[in-house]
Amino acid sequence: MSYTLAEIADKIGGRLKGDGKVQIQGVAGLEEAQPGEISFLASSKYHQFLSSTKASAVILPENEELDLQLPVILHTNPYFAFACAVKLFHPEKPDYPVGIHPTATVEKSVRLGKNVCVGPYTVIEGKAEIGDDCTILAGCFIGESTKIGKEVFLYPKVTVYRNCRIGSRVIIHSGVVIGSDGFGFAFEKGKHHKIPQIGTVIIEDEVEIGANCTIDRAALGATKIGRGTKLDNLVHLGHSVEVGENSILVAQVGIGGSTKLGKYVTLAGQAGLVGHITLGDCVTVGAQGGVTKSIPTGTTVSGYPAREHKKAKKIEAHLSHLPEYVRRIKELEKEVRRLKENH
Amino acid sequence: MSYTLAEIADKIGGRLKGDGKVQIQGVAGLEEAQPGEISFLASSKYHQFLSSTKASAVILPENEELDLQLPVILHTNPYFAFACAVKLFHPEKPDYPVGIHPTATVEKSVRLGKNVCVGPYTVIEGKAEIGDDCTILAGCFIGESTKIGKEVFLYPKVTVYRNCRIGSRVIIHSGVVIGSDGFGFAFEKGKHHKIPQIGTVIIEDEVEIGANCTIDRAALGATKIGRGTKLDNLVHLGHSVEVGENSILVAQVGIGGSTKLGKYVTLAGQAGLVGHITLGDCVTVGAQGGVTKSIPTGTTVSGYPAREHKKAKKIEAHLSHLPEYVRRIKELEKEVRRLKENH
Amino acid sequence: MSYTLAEIADKIGGRLKGDGKVQIQGVAGLEEAQPGEISFLASSKYHQFLSSTKASAVILPENEELDLQLPVILHTNPYFAFACAVKLFHPEKPDYPVGIHPTATVEKSVRLGKNVCVGPYTVIEGKAEIGDDCTILAGCFIGESTKIGKEVFLYPKVTVYRNCRIGSRVIIHSGVVIGSDGFGFAFEKGKHHKIPQIGTVIIEDEVEIGANCTIDRAALGATKIGRGTKLDNLVHLGHSVEVGENSILVAQVGIGGSTKLGKYVTLAGQAGLVGHITLGDCVTVGAQGGVTKSIPTGTTVSGYPAREHKKAKKIEAHLSHLPEYVRRIKELEKEVRRLKENH
Repeated sequence: MSYTLAEIADKIGGRLKGDGKVQIQGVAGLEEAQPGEISFLASSKYHQFLSSTKASAVILPENEELDLQLPVILHTNPYFAFACAVKLFHPEKPDYPVGIHPTATVEKSVRLGKNVCVGPYTVIEGKAEIGDDCTILAGCFIGESTKIGKEVFLYPKVTVYRNCRIGSRVIIHSGVVIGSDGFGFAFEKGKHHKIPQIGTVIIEDEVEIGANCTIDRAALGATKIGRGTKLDNLVHLGHSVEVGENSILVAQVGIGGSTKLGKYVTLAGQAGLVGHITLGDCVTVGAQGGVTKSIPTGTTVSGYPAREHKKAKKIEAHLSHLPEYVRRIKELEKEVRRLKENH
Repeated sequence: MSYTLAEIADKIGGRLKGDGKVQIQGVAGLEEAQPGEISFLASSKYHQFLSSTKASAVILPENEELDLQLPVILHTNPYFAFACAVKLFHPEKPDYPVGIHPTATVEKSVRLGKNVCVGPYTVIEGKAEIGDDCTILAGCFIGESTKIGKEVFLYPKVTVYRNCRIGSRVIIHSGVVIGSDGFGFAFEKGKHHKIPQIGTVIIEDEVEIGANCTIDRAALGATKIGRGTKLDNLVHLGHSVEVGENSILVAQVGIGGSTKLGKYVTLAGQAGLVGHITLGDCVTVGAQGGVTKSIPTGTTVSGYPAREHKKAKKIEAHLSHLPEYVRRIKELEKEVRRLKENH
Repeated sequence: MSYTLAEIADKIGGRLKGDGKVQIQGVAGLEEAQPGEISFLASSKYHQFLSSTKASAVILPENEELDLQLPVILHTNPYFAFACAVKLFHPEKPDYPVGIHPTATVEKSVRLGKNVCVGPYTVIEGKAEIGDDCTILAGCFIGESTKIGKEVFLYPKVTVYRNCRIGSRVIIHSGVVIGSDGFGFAFEKGKHHKIPQIGTVIIEDEVEIGANCTIDRAALGATKIGRGTKLDNLVHLGHSVEVGENSILVAQVGIGGSTKLGKYVTLAGQAGLVGHITLGDCVTVGAQGGVTKSIPTGTTVSGYPAREHKKAKKIEAHLSHLPEYVRRIKELEKEVRRLKENH
């Protein structure tokens, strides 16, 4: 595949500066790019690589005042523009032939849409529904009566228990488990008694779920992931958790049962949220943050227990000087003792 | 399925107050319940929903002095009573037909009990033993000589390496790996040399293990999970860990090798325990707690490094005021300087 | 299998002290060992068990001045010596017959080396290459064009996406996912747009990867794990992470995208590293440490945010006395007030 730079500028909605006839055959990072490839500058941190890059063109921020030898495409959001450029040369998902692999086990009562690919050793139980243009790779398990929308892509070995609902254009990576029992036990006479988890999981459109995540089904009602939300790897959602739209949950995040998140929430890596709290829209939790209370809309928190971020940073800074402050307290005590004696 | 309220009160061991002839067809949360369903009040936090619920009956704490229009069942442990009610209408585990799926690979020397279900693509290696009434769903792997008790339920894609022992009435969710090699290497001449992990894993009766947990086999001896203990998702147990009976390990907990836990231990979400320590009976570790030393029986700890909980809370409270204390130290220094000058 | 103690001393490179003709049939821990078995003393912590052990011989540190009844083998590195002794009696990996299981799906264009074992239900996609003497157990998935070296051992249900490279003598445990998409999205007009992850994963020789780890492919370029590095269970590596040679990543560690680690790095359990930082050679991060900045060679850090370890310990010690220091500040304030009044 090959495009002229002018064609690329047009397709990604950027402004061309320099020779638009340059032929581009691929995309790469500034350091790795070869002639014939286009690269991008996402952060001013990488300015240093601009002068030495072998790329034939670069995507730059609209306001970047650089006098480069190279032709450039200017864009208000160069990272997004680069994403679009990558898609010109590479698909988001691999391409698989339509059809049910002869080794797959698809029960008769399953309703399959058009152009569905079912990989080897995949099991689809009775009354499940799979929409048009879905790709379900090898070794997946779709439980009874689970409904999956259109253009969904399941990588190998995804497990969806019975009775769950997955929207359209959802991508789920290998090893993910959806609909496993929530962690609910009633303690009586020295033993933990299992509470049947009879609720479900609802995943809306355009969600992506990273490898080996676990999304438990609700005891009653539903665990929900809102439209456009993206989960990194090894994330855990407890029963009846609700994550709003367009949120970002970075790797190894864990959320306790019944906690509700608004829209555009960001949880950085390894953050943990206790159960039964609420995070408003646009809340951000720092990496490893431990959230023990509800957080109002628009707030950034960090640390354990999570505190308003500016305050947490201030406390951290003071903590770094704690040994010095302790010394100063001791010094003060001496001084005061002396003052009292001299009195 | 339908029961009168009087029948339900009788079956769950509660005390009926009001019309016992009301027909109940299902269970639901207070907010979602419809006429014909029974709900429950687990915590006084949800009192507000009692007046507006559409449920036909509610399970309440024995001592709750409420004048409701609805018929109620009073119980000393309403959460447990509700769990029993749920079980009247829903089984704990889905029901699968007995038999070995034609696509499964079960070696000849395997000893299968009566009424066993083996799902598609499941592998059971030689000399393994599976007790009566077990259900082993699609894509599981049971290694050579592993022994599994009665009424065990394995969801799809559980892996049990060779030579492990699993008791009866155990439930294991998808993606769990049991018996993988413990993390043991001897460092010599600049390299890490693998120590063969020749021990085993022993899981006692009535344990439940959540999705994608990993339970390593011991180097020598056994990694053990005691009877009635419940693990949430993504929990890691290192080699030779021993967890006592009836303990609760919440999601993403990690336990380093050779650490021993007593009975009735609770580890909240993302808590981590270093190796080679001992936690007594009834120890509780708070969410994200980092335990670096042995903890005596009955103690609650939290924070990193984990401290006795009351102390940890006190330190946290002081930390929140640290910027103020620093200001006060500086103020004191000024005052003392002035006092010295005036002297 | 049986060796004389003299043979064992010879094979493991230790110095015999006592009767070399004792027959040894196995290895065990000090407490569990039976007559005919050899044990070892790894740490002086276990001295107490030496007098009561039933072992027929013990491996001791070279400089250990103990007057035991037992014959012993002295070695400068008794843990390594014991590892060697274990290997005399037990293989590192189980032994499987060569051949492709009739239920496996291996595409025609796959290049298989000699003496390869492919287990039931394993899928190997087109143009993949598998080197000599590899064992790929049940239910694995090897994506298109992925290359695997010699003597690699994949436990059941390992997933390697397309186009990845794995060296020789690598061991990968069940549930591991290699080559899943990195977590990369560009935010534009209120939505997260997926950036196709077109890079790869390169795993060098003699790496071992624990159960349910996730190793994402790079957006551009490669995610890399250096020769001889060992990962425990449930570790997450983001896209373009590079881990140097002979490093140790303990369970549940998470590393953000583009972070680079030197050689001989140790990350203790649940440690987390943000993206885009660099850790020098021989860096150690304590359990649950949260690393937010680059760390120079040879440094040990701990805590959140990770600080130089000695400093972190000092801060922790002071924190334990924080309530007391606060009391002392208040006392000082009183004293100073009194001094001022008396002035």
